[in-house]
Amino acid sequence: MIITVTLNPAVDMTYRVDALAVGGVHRVREVQERPGGKGVNVSRVLTQLGESTLAIGPGDRTFETLLTGYGVRSFFPPLLPRVRRTLVVHGGESTSLWEPGPLVYDGAQAVLEELVSAHLPDASALVVSGSLAGGLSPELPARLGAMAAEAGLPVVFDLDNEPLRAAAATGGGVLMPNADELGRLLGADAFHDVAAAARGLAARTGAPVVVTLGADGLLAATGEECWWARPPETVEGNPTGAGDATAAGVARGLAHGLSWPELLSHAVALGAAAVLTPVAGEVDLEAYRRWAPQVAVATVDSLTIGA
Amino acid sequence: MIITVTLNPAVDMTYRVDALAVGGVHRVREVQERPGGKGVNVSRVLTQLGESTLAIGPGDRTFETLLTGYGVRSFFPPLLPRVRRTLVVHGGESTSLWEPGPLVYDGAQAVLEELVSAHLPDASALVVSGSLAGGLSPELPARLGAMAAEAGLPVVFDLDNEPLRAAAATGGGVLMPNADELGRLLGADAFHDVAAAARGLAARTGAPVVVTLGADGLLAATGEECWWARPPETVEGNPTGAGDATAAGVARGLAHGLSWPELLSHAVALGAAAVLTPVAGEVDLEAYRRWAPQVAVATVDSLTIGA
Repeated sequence: MIITVTLNPAVDMTYRVDALAVGGVHRVREVQERPGGKGVNVSRVLTQLGESTLAIGPGDRTFETLLTGYGVRSFFPPLLPRVRRTLVVHGGESTSLWEPGPLVYDGAQAVLEELVSAHLPDASALVVSGSLAGGLSPELPARLGAMAAEAGLPVVFDLDNEPLRAAAATGGGVLMPNADELGRLLGADAFHDVAAAARGLAARTGAPVVVTLGADGLLAATGEECWWARPPETVEGNPTGAGDATAAGVARGLAHGLSWPELLSHAVALGAAAVLTPVAGEVDLEAYRRWAPQVAVATVDSLTIGA
Repeated sequence: MIITVTLNPAVDMTYRVDALAVGGVHRVREVQERPGGKGVNVSRVLTQLGESTLAIGPGDRTFETLLTGYGVRSFFPPLLPRVRRTLVVHGGESTSLWEPGPLVYDGAQAVLEELVSAHLPDASALVVSGSLAGGLSPELPARLGAMAAEAGLPVVFDLDNEPLRAAAATGGGVLMPNADELGRLLGADAFHDVAAAARGLAARTGAPVVVTLGADGLLAATGEECWWARPPETVEGNPTGAGDATAAGVARGLAHGLSWPELLSHAVALGAAAVLTPVAGEVDLEAYRRWAPQVAVATVDSLTIGA
């Protein structure tokens, strides 16, 4: 079972109207509500792959029920007054309205640590993804990862800013930054060689680093080797959630003890197959199965993109 | 205790953004969520007046908790997959988005009838207000009213269309249409004399008819007399919810056995005091107390408005 932790969940709402007009009154033709947040998306992809998963995070009175409706086993105890919503209004152009998230209740952090700890004995990997709700310490992902690593589990971090810095400083977990996040982590001296940057970071953390490169695939510095895996074709579609599908592939590969070329092939194919679906947290399974054996994987010394 | 029944509740949401732009991405600066629906507004006004009240209707997992947060005792069992939302986005002009309401679950009607029936022994009046969620019979308000009337309680109906027609046909309850609703009820031959129309309708239903006339106050045909009550001054503000405050005044007057001139004075003053507040379900108590003794009440034979 792969545990995913989403420390800043969201409810993704979609309204369809005939044509949005500022100042107008609109009857909404269709309302959709989906459980969102990066770890939740990872669990949804794992569920689609038939992989056992448990999603954990701070919820409100209804978030867990929403997830159950998508077949995802989860614990999102009511540690927030309400889960923030992201509203996209489709009607002519798409208009987005992002609610601010409320602060977690006192004691939320201890509850989350205990929840994760209680389920580690049944787990095969831990993924901590995304930003943090207000009131949670930026050290929390690193702390959860350290607990899992101590229990002998592979750990995947898809983080940014302070939480990424804390996880890098603690070490032991696989970091999955994109190029921008890697740049922010490594500071003002922007790197040119992604391979050298990832190799240096992996040496610091004592664990592999997987850099997500969008249409250019993945670069993984494993300590011994540096691998570059590229998708077999350029995919047009909705890139939102592609990183989460990729993280699902990395965590699943680590949980099953795949070799790095195998793991990267599946992760790249999942990321590309996510671009084909209109919503985050879902992949085109047929495309994934077709592409996984076609991913090109090379060992590289250096990799410069858009230099 | 005055029971209010809201058969089509809503959650009234307000977003504040800097400036809404179609196609844009907006961080919402402030989110407000209020329990809405006409009966709910009546209960909120009654609560403000210190009057004991119980709000009943079909809810979802969270609606009752939202009402409790406003100090209103309520039973809104989860008979709907979700309570519809009305979203108003303030940012430049105000833009409204009205969600469609879902259908009630099977058996919802029986649950609502039992809930109302169980609380009639403690009640002093029943108010049934507003439209009906999909899946509820248009006869339901009339049926609830008949149960209350049989128990000897005064009944107030603030309805439109089919439910209003059914309540009028059953009789026994005080109808509170506005001029448009009265016109729709009485059919194609639009009336000119509100007093004659109300008198005729009261004769058919065997109960008083109170016509709400906005800034022109109330006309009440009681069977014996026809009263016209006018607010002491013209009030500028937000008329949404004024009708609900008026209904609260009528129900409270009936529950306490006030004379019609007294009852109408309070109801007119409450309606005007609701216009002063920016949100429905609230009144300016100070204005209400100042205006109630100043309302002019006349007995009239005929009343023509905008002829």
